[in-house]
Amino acid sequence: MPSPTRAHCEDLDRGDPLGAFRAEFALADGLIYLDGHSLGPMPQAALARLHEAANVEWRRDLIGSWNSAGWFQQPYKLGAVLAPLIGAGADEVVVTDTTAINLFKVAACALALRPDRRIVVMEGSNFPTDNYIVQGLLGLVGRGLEIRFAEKPEVMAALDRDVAAVILTQVHYRTSHLLDMAAITRHAHDIGALAVWDLCHSAGIMPIDLNQAGADFAVGCTYKYLNGGPGSPAFIFAARRHHGRAIQPLTGWWGHAEPFAFDRDYRPATNVSQMLTGTQPILSMAAMEAGLEMAARADMGQVRDKAGQLGELLIGLIEARCGAFGFRLISPRAAAERGSHVAFDHPSGYPIVRALAQRGVIGDFRAPETIRFGLAPLYIRYVDVWDAVAALAEIMRTRAWDDPEFHRLEAVT
Amino acid sequence: MPSPTRAHCEDLDRGDPLGAFRAEFALADGLIYLDGHSLGPMPQAALARLHEAANVEWRRDLIGSWNSAGWFQQPYKLGAVLAPLIGAGADEVVVTDTTAINLFKVAACALALRPDRRIVVMEGSNFPTDNYIVQGLLGLVGRGLEIRFAEKPEVMAALDRDVAAVILTQVHYRTSHLLDMAAITRHAHDIGALAVWDLCHSAGIMPIDLNQAGADFAVGCTYKYLNGGPGSPAFIFAARRHHGRAIQPLTGWWGHAEPFAFDRDYRPATNVSQMLTGTQPILSMAAMEAGLEMAARADMGQVRDKAGQLGELLIGLIEARCGAFGFRLISPRAAAERGSHVAFDHPSGYPIVRALAQRGVIGDFRAPETIRFGLAPLYIRYVDVWDAVAALAEIMRTRAWDDPEFHRLEAVT
Repeated sequence: MPSPTRAHCEDLDRGDPLGAFRAEFALADGLIYLDGHSLGPMPQAALARLHEAANVEWRRDLIGSWNSAGWFQQPYKLGAVLAPLIGAGADEVVVTDTTAINLFKVAACALALRPDRRIVVMEGSNFPTDNYIVQGLLGLVGRGLEIRFAEKPEVMAALDRDVAAVILTQVHYRTSHLLDMAAITRHAHDIGALAVWDLCHSAGIMPIDLNQAGADFAVGCTYKYLNGGPGSPAFIFAARRHHGRAIQPLTGWWGHAEPFAFDRDYRPATNVSQMLTGTQPILSMAAMEAGLEMAARADMGQVRDKAGQLGELLIGLIEARCGAFGFRLISPRAAAERGSHVAFDHPSGYPIVRALAQRGVIGDFRAPETIRFGLAPLYIRYVDVWDAVAALAEIMRTRAWDDPEFHRLEAVT
Repeated sequence: MPSPTRAHCEDLDRGDPLGAFRAEFALADGLIYLDGHSLGPMPQAALARLHEAANVEWRRDLIGSWNSAGWFQQPYKLGAVLAPLIGAGADEVVVTDTTAINLFKVAACALALRPDRRIVVMEGSNFPTDNYIVQGLLGLVGRGLEIRFAEKPEVMAALDRDVAAVILTQVHYRTSHLLDMAAITRHAHDIGALAVWDLCHSAGIMPIDLNQAGADFAVGCTYKYLNGGPGSPAFIFAARRHHGRAIQPLTGWWGHAEPFAFDRDYRPATNVSQMLTGTQPILSMAAMEAGLEMAARADMGQVRDKAGQLGELLIGLIEARCGAFGFRLISPRAAAERGSHVAFDHPSGYPIVRALAQRGVIGDFRAPETIRFGLAPLYIRYVDVWDAVAALAEIMRTRAWDDPEFHRLEAVT
């Protein structure tokens, strides 16, 4: 198949049913932002909402805003916006705290529900904070609990009757490989284990149906494909059947059955409120609303289709135009097996990413040699992919990346 | 002593060495905001800083801001601003997460440092989230750990050689009574226990010297007297001697020795970074800077003196002008034994607070019958106290509070 032309990409953009979303983002002209898998760009509406939260709710209305502006309700309200995006009931999701802390909560729930089992199955190559958090939890709980690490092809075989829970990330942060949530959850349940899913790299880029898959718990972040803003609070899904039965152990007053009774002793809420702990960063919560609402308006089937096509375009163009320069695709070639970013290894990955950034093409780098290109379908156009690869080809052809300036290590994100 | 006149209060304001701070707050004319013990008002500088974080750092500079805008450094940078306010080294404090979550971390550290002891001493009447969090932690850890509840006069006697740690709040959220941090910490150490302090109601209103007291760990919030904004992240103090030895169990990647090495297994940082877990709400962190910096510029000795005088004025005026109406002072009468709010019980506390609010005097209510008046010295004037009591006296004299409108319960903060 011949490599597509830029004109062909323009045609694809004209026919893109998601094309109108791009104008809702505050993206600078000329910038090709392929880093939405790390930090999504600002929705135009976020700035006005943030200003209102600061200048009206905090400045003018002060403490009264806990009621009048619905600050108390923010974790639920944002959770209800998110719920249909992940196949959950509105009463099963709250937005709160960080992914890491939320994973601690739900992993503890899963272990408490399987007190006679001592193994947690995780993917060792997963984004490390998940492993670290479970290691911290197991250290605290003791009772001989251990992690059994298994990579994607080994996960199913790792599930036996010692397993209390599988804790897995649906889309891999580095390779973008997709795990089969439904099949793994079903098998986990067959052997009597629970299934906990991290949706950090999948929420907002594909249809997700936690309840249809039978998932027990899930967590995820909102600052990647949900465009919630830097460090915007994360979410928790707890399946309704576990409410009031699985008690997460970060038992702050927001999770009490009656927070304003000021009881001396903790009594867990019997609904999803129990997943809450303390007071949330309201300004960051306010800024997040616009991104969640935009994602909720998008057709996730269309988003998934476009992500696959953008990825296919990127892979094809890089292989056609940069094939001689040593890039090695580490993402699955088949769109059905990938999330919404595409990763290549290259021994000079770091200076290449820096040289691209100088030309207005923002990808990112993960040591030791992975380049990731995020292809968020709500704002990335087919021509952006074409132009990004044109810039990459130019950088490689001229060896522009081999400049001491680009080799110098900055702190990395 | 005759009750002071309003003219006398005006004189006091003219002589107030802290008087200039009030203009730095965005407080509406005519509002008397006596709720800074719950949510501090907005510093003027916060709005501009927030706008820059959103509109320049997020919108324009996107992912690059993790380095260029110092987002990675925010927990340390804000911690360093806070450190002198609480008698800590800049390398002993980070701003992160919520008070409840931070208490979980440091309580776990304290228990891990005393594995042979099984008692935690806490004040049962403390703000309940502290008790709840420790109850959750003990449930997870097991090994026969228990809380021994003791009220203020009983705390010293509750310390024996079964005690692993005392976990106490320096200023009581309801009564405003002040615990003697230095004496309790010394006695805790004498019997081989650790001392953990919650500074939620004391940071920013009095000189605090954690290191001189020998405190082991401390936590606190930043949205009360530090005016950081609604739900602004909390702080942790970990004494240098415990770094690398007491490992908090919410082991996310931000607390790893090398977060960007993407190791499979957790290796704790050997400095205060280990107290961090995950990615922080950057916009809320940005809004917080102005409040912390203002508090750091204030002379905490002067702040403490003024808080005492404001409290004395309030108590004297209420007793003189509302003495017949059944208010019962539940805060210590002596300024040296109080924090910066003053609390009265009254059987009609709730409608009274509502009626005051309608007249622009914002106090707050804690069930069943406590009215709290926060007297934050950076923006409350002596005339504000005088005018607030005048409004209260009028409400009581005319029974204006006894209106069905004010009895109707709103959700409460």
